[in-house]
Amino acid sequence: MEVVQVLHMNGGKGETSYANNSLVQQKVISLTRPITEEAITNLYCRTLPRSLAIADLGCSSGPNTLFVVSELIKVVEKLRKKLGHESLEYQVFLNDLPGNDFNTIFKSLPSFQKQMSCQMGPGAGPCLFSGTPGSFYGRLFPSNSLNFVHSSYSLQWLSQVPKGLDNNKGNVYMASTSPPSVLRAYYEQFQRDFSLFLKCRAEELMVGGGMVLTFLGRRSEDPSSKECCYIWELLAMALNDMVSEGLIEEDKMDSFNIPQYTPSPSEVKSEVLKGGYFSIDRLEVSTVKWNDYDSEFNPSIAFSDDGYSVANCMRAVAEPLLVNQFGDTIIDEVFRRYRKIIADHISNEKTQFINVTISMKKSGHFII
Amino acid sequence: MEVVQVLHMNGGKGETSYANNSLVQQKVISLTRPITEEAITNLYCRTLPRSLAIADLGCSSGPNTLFVVSELIKVVEKLRKKLGHESLEYQVFLNDLPGNDFNTIFKSLPSFQKQMSCQMGPGAGPCLFSGTPGSFYGRLFPSNSLNFVHSSYSLQWLSQVPKGLDNNKGNVYMASTSPPSVLRAYYEQFQRDFSLFLKCRAEELMVGGGMVLTFLGRRSEDPSSKECCYIWELLAMALNDMVSEGLIEEDKMDSFNIPQYTPSPSEVKSEVLKGGYFSIDRLEVSTVKWNDYDSEFNPSIAFSDDGYSVANCMRAVAEPLLVNQFGDTIIDEVFRRYRKIIADHISNEKTQFINVTISMKKSGHFII
Repeated sequence: MEVVQVLHMNGGKGETSYANNSLVQQKVISLTRPITEEAITNLYCRTLPRSLAIADLGCSSGPNTLFVVSELIKVVEKLRKKLGHESLEYQVFLNDLPGNDFNTIFKSLPSFQKQMSCQMGPGAGPCLFSGTPGSFYGRLFPSNSLNFVHSSYSLQWLSQVPKGLDNNKGNVYMASTSPPSVLRAYYEQFQRDFSLFLKCRAEELMVGGGMVLTFLGRRSEDPSSKECCYIWELLAMALNDMVSEGLIEEDKMDSFNIPQYTPSPSEVKSEVLKGGYFSIDRLEVSTVKWNDYDSEFNPSIAFSDDGYSVANCMRAVAEPLLVNQFGDTIIDEVFRRYRKIIADHISNEKTQFINVTISMKKSGHFII
Repeated sequence: MEVVQVLHMNGGKGETSYANNSLVQQKVISLTRPITEEAITNLYCRTLPRSLAIADLGCSSGPNTLFVVSELIKVVEKLRKKLGHESLEYQVFLNDLPGNDFNTIFKSLPSFQKQMSCQMGPGAGPCLFSGTPGSFYGRLFPSNSLNFVHSSYSLQWLSQVPKGLDNNKGNVYMASTSPPSVLRAYYEQFQRDFSLFLKCRAEELMVGGGMVLTFLGRRSEDPSSKECCYIWELLAMALNDMVSEGLIEEDKMDSFNIPQYTPSPSEVKSEVLKGGYFSIDRLEVSTVKWNDYDSEFNPSIAFSDDGYSVANCMRAVAEPLLVNQFGDTIIDEVFRRYRKIIADHISNEKTQFINVTISMKKSGHFII
């Protein structure tokens, strides 16, 4: 977990957490909302719980942290009122690695809970929040204790940089020039991690419980496809330029690899079927353009961006990893170059993030 | 909750949290350990749970935060091994106000969990930790979800400064010169708060569930007894001196009161019986000398203390409240004087903290 730990550990610093990816995440949450709403609606109607335990895994600490769970609760409240059912007690578990800034989330909770309570109106049950620090590639909750699990844009992070990437020199992720052994090492790490994730969640969810996961992923069956790897190839370009100018040591560049895997829908499906714990309700792909969100969320810079937004968004994700490997003195220069490279390529290439969303429920025949 | 909020909010700053009371707390935890161990042993034997949900309320953030729950878990592990029972899953909820420094607790968890796992040996179930921010004078957990509740040295804090203390001029807490209306206002606030606490915990605990609470309290039936109020009277002396020298505004001194109530065993018992949710297994009193803990924990300063330890210990508790009322410029001077006053009085007066510990279980006949 070392590298991912580093990534999340920096979440506390504000500038370098997933939360800074908030515009992309917001877009993704809104794109996948119909799937999430369908899943929680079906869960409620299927199981009619008197209390509802929801876990959001990889919650980060930012404007989106409380958004998804509050939407889920509102959907259930509307439904139970429509059906004339009694009030429920909601228990929400917010999970991220132990270095996440839980203090900021917790300080915002009293006003958030007050607001929720107003929106839900009189007669609604309590919404009870806890933070659960730890890696989701391990057990976080007791057996059969959760009704619903949600995770968005976190599961593409591997538990560690795969072993056996010695032949990936000049690249920082899977790339068109990566040898097959590198692609295999990445895929096998994904398989180990995701199968463990599924096993843990199968233990923690009640029978009939629901789970919706969104990965940063890809459409193609080629794991080094440009649609997922190109943005990292552009970063490698910037770093390689700096190696050739003697600003970065070649050894350090050669041993630097991103602990991520952006799976295809069929790879996700394959692990779920192999585990046998869950039945799949939906498996869908959606896309967000690299700089599309600007035009909706920040119109003023949509046409004068010059790679700035994308580089900034990637910086939020990559900076802790880069600092860990290369130190912090070169960071501004890396991103100056990266920004320029992105600006030069953004109009010529297919430039979008691909999201793979899977909605499933825990099979009744699976007994722990 | 405003004032208590301030008190806890400062927990994050390190110097001004309950945690700095850690030596006294450590002593109290060790004194009350037989009661806690008996309670968890009885709970286990009575209910033979497959999973055990424990909440520590007012956990603070310091060296004692994880100590009590880890001891409780060890007792149960020893017992279940002796009885040849299957492993349990432990779920621990650490609660304090939202301003508590949960980040520090969470960052220490991975190594703590590793250590626990080693001590428990192979075959033990997982220990799963969550933080639950919020006031314990309100609901924190779902109905019937907890097996055991523990709280040490937190429940003497009221949810707010009582209303109706206008006649308590020159004092900062109940004192020998406080009029009856002031004593009544304090007691009624304690009754409201503690009865609400009991109601909430009764909803959250499973039938047969156990609860052990330790208050900073008193033996006497007189709420203005020196045994609980004297330490605050000495603080009032320091403040009144500064008022007379024009260093503190008289108005501010007159409107300053500590949101605490140190109940007697019979007052604690009375609220528990009135609520009717719990049956009492034990109700005991223990004492810690104001400076006794030094001789055990810090022998080097035991004989050359001059009020320093006690003033320091009280500073950890009182500083946030004083800063909130008087600003931070006068603080050092207040505690310089307070220390001297303590040193002058510590040998002449009965100088000990009194702890009231109650152990109870949720009655079977109480249905929510």
